[in-house]
Amino acid sequence: MIDYKLYIPGPVDVSPEAYQAMATRVMGHRSPDFVDLYQSCQAQLQELFQTKDPVFLSTSSAWGVMEGAVRNLSRKKVLCCMCGAFSDKWLDVSQRCGKEAEGLVVEWGTHIPPELLDEKLASGEFDLVTLVHNETSCGMMNPLEGIMKVLAKYPDVISVIDTVSSFSVVPIPKDDWGIDVILTGSQKALALPPGLALLSVSERAFARAESIEGRGYYFDFLEFLKNHEKGMTPSTPAIPQIHGLKYTLDKIFEEGIENRQARHAKLNAIVHDWVSEKGFELLPQKQYASKSLTCVRNNLEVDIAGFVKALREEKKLAIDGGYGKIKGKTFRISNMGNENEETISHLLSSMDEVLPRFLSS
Amino acid sequence: MIDYKLYIPGPVDVSPEAYQAMATRVMGHRSPDFVDLYQSCQAQLQELFQTKDPVFLSTSSAWGVMEGAVRNLSRKKVLCCMCGAFSDKWLDVSQRCGKEAEGLVVEWGTHIPPELLDEKLASGEFDLVTLVHNETSCGMMNPLEGIMKVLAKYPDVISVIDTVSSFSVVPIPKDDWGIDVILTGSQKALALPPGLALLSVSERAFARAESIEGRGYYFDFLEFLKNHEKGMTPSTPAIPQIHGLKYTLDKIFEEGIENRQARHAKLNAIVHDWVSEKGFELLPQKQYASKSLTCVRNNLEVDIAGFVKALREEKKLAIDGGYGKIKGKTFRISNMGNENEETISHLLSSMDEVLPRFLSS
Repeated sequence: MIDYKLYIPGPVDVSPEAYQAMATRVMGHRSPDFVDLYQSCQAQLQELFQTKDPVFLSTSSAWGVMEGAVRNLSRKKVLCCMCGAFSDKWLDVSQRCGKEAEGLVVEWGTHIPPELLDEKLASGEFDLVTLVHNETSCGMMNPLEGIMKVLAKYPDVISVIDTVSSFSVVPIPKDDWGIDVILTGSQKALALPPGLALLSVSERAFARAESIEGRGYYFDFLEFLKNHEKGMTPSTPAIPQIHGLKYTLDKIFEEGIENRQARHAKLNAIVHDWVSEKGFELLPQKQYASKSLTCVRNNLEVDIAGFVKALREEKKLAIDGGYGKIKGKTFRISNMGNENEETISHLLSSMDEVLPRFLSS
Repeated sequence: MIDYKLYIPGPVDVSPEAYQAMATRVMGHRSPDFVDLYQSCQAQLQELFQTKDPVFLSTSSAWGVMEGAVRNLSRKKVLCCMCGAFSDKWLDVSQRCGKEAEGLVVEWGTHIPPELLDEKLASGEFDLVTLVHNETSCGMMNPLEGIMKVLAKYPDVISVIDTVSSFSVVPIPKDDWGIDVILTGSQKALALPPGLALLSVSERAFARAESIEGRGYYFDFLEFLKNHEKGMTPSTPAIPQIHGLKYTLDKIFEEGIENRQARHAKLNAIVHDWVSEKGFELLPQKQYASKSLTCVRNNLEVDIAGFVKALREEKKLAIDGGYGKIKGKTFRISNMGNENEETISHLLSSMDEVLPRFLSS
């Protein structure tokens, strides 16, 4: 049915071996066999999340957890750092949860300046900050270490960091940097199909949640914790994706986290070189460019829709033609998951063949 | 890893063909290929749900949608019909969402009497009723037609019917009976792995939702509707389960809905006969016994835990040893999904072999 390979920034291509792992028989989710599966992932997940806090598995997309974080953790007012499609949406979602919320807004593709965050927080109005580490829509990676240094000055402000498309691509020392809630999804750098979100929550965030009414059940962090202590999830989980997760974790540790991150960095640099050679520009400033994907500014006025379609139909390779208001003005190439120099070179040489027809003359 | 076959009342056994369908490549969830997949399920789903309303796919367990229904639809007070573990929990979940809620409580295994519901609703206090059609914990099926007749007298009261373990097993004419929200999960009679919930929502319920604040985003019914109109889901969906769903729908329509329901009824009757022959009793009254599963009262004082363990380890067949406060006092056998006379007979004869060792002497 689908005869092309995905190089869009999620979902990314899934290996036949991961699919095979997902086809491991399901078990009762209250059975010792499920507990074994759940617990067999935990030490690896904690190492990958660079945390001593528990890592939870949520049967949802990351948005479920993002909404859950707002419901669990804000009593006063949420500050949403807005720098692209996904981070922008968090303001709307927060308000839809009935929470007071305000944006710290910069132009799409621009990073969130730590000093601007500091100014905002100094008002004392906010008790929760939402930040998308790697804005997938713009291929921009925020300076998280600097941002966390600012947050460290405000002990009453809880941080929720969406690492949907940066998790496992670059080191994110959750505990060392003092991140309260970190969350990601299965369909990005973990190279699994969608259906599972992963999150880790600090003691401080649990304490805050205890004092908040209306958290509900499905995304209640304390309910996750209670079930985690039994090696279970609050509700019936997406067991195939968890079987797949166990397979992927084993693969990651076999390769070595550092080797994997070096591979992602190298592939990302190869794509960046291609961008320069062709005379394209990156959407973000070079120093804030994502290591997971490349968001290319369409400064050469390519017919992006035509280019993407031809590449998919003729070469069976799918890249992305831009998201939301920058559709057609950008295109995006993922280097997450299982890609290697050979597959990325194949993609780039295929793009070389197809591109000339779509350059404005 | 799992060397036994599931006869627990969910998750149920998944066929190799369904797993194979789930391994169909994922695509971008905003791509025309996803829209094709989504829309290819819709007509079959509407027929199966016996509705002209849209059928939505939620990447969550059914609990997510159950919580969502409460957040979307109640302004005044929720009446939770409580007759077992799952229906009882809905009261707690409603209150955790910050909603006023009250229970209509009967003993576990007993049905909800329509006349009692009528009395409660006559107070005018309630704007939402939650009901579990088939209480999986007790193997009890509520008299839904009679209950819906009562609800028809109260046009301001919205009905949310959990058909998690009855959907597709018996006819549930959603539109004819005036059900506002009907919901189910993938891992019961549809014989798919968990990870996907399905729901259908009436015009009346959409109108109510429009007037309710704090619905959030992830389970917002209006957001589902908006995306449905584009052939999409609000958030990144569990694509493997949707590929599996398409496969299952084709299988169901190949067999014929009526034939499938007749098969379930016949297998259920075979299990009931076994129960009588052995001198066991059903937990519910015969007329309210579920057609999806059999909940057996442990009147013979069997060592249930030992029996279930031996059956699983020696015969590689897993039944359930009772849920919550009736663990050990009941056991449960599913006849959902792909079971047939041969597989059910094999289960029962295997139980015959193992049981004697666990009967009290």
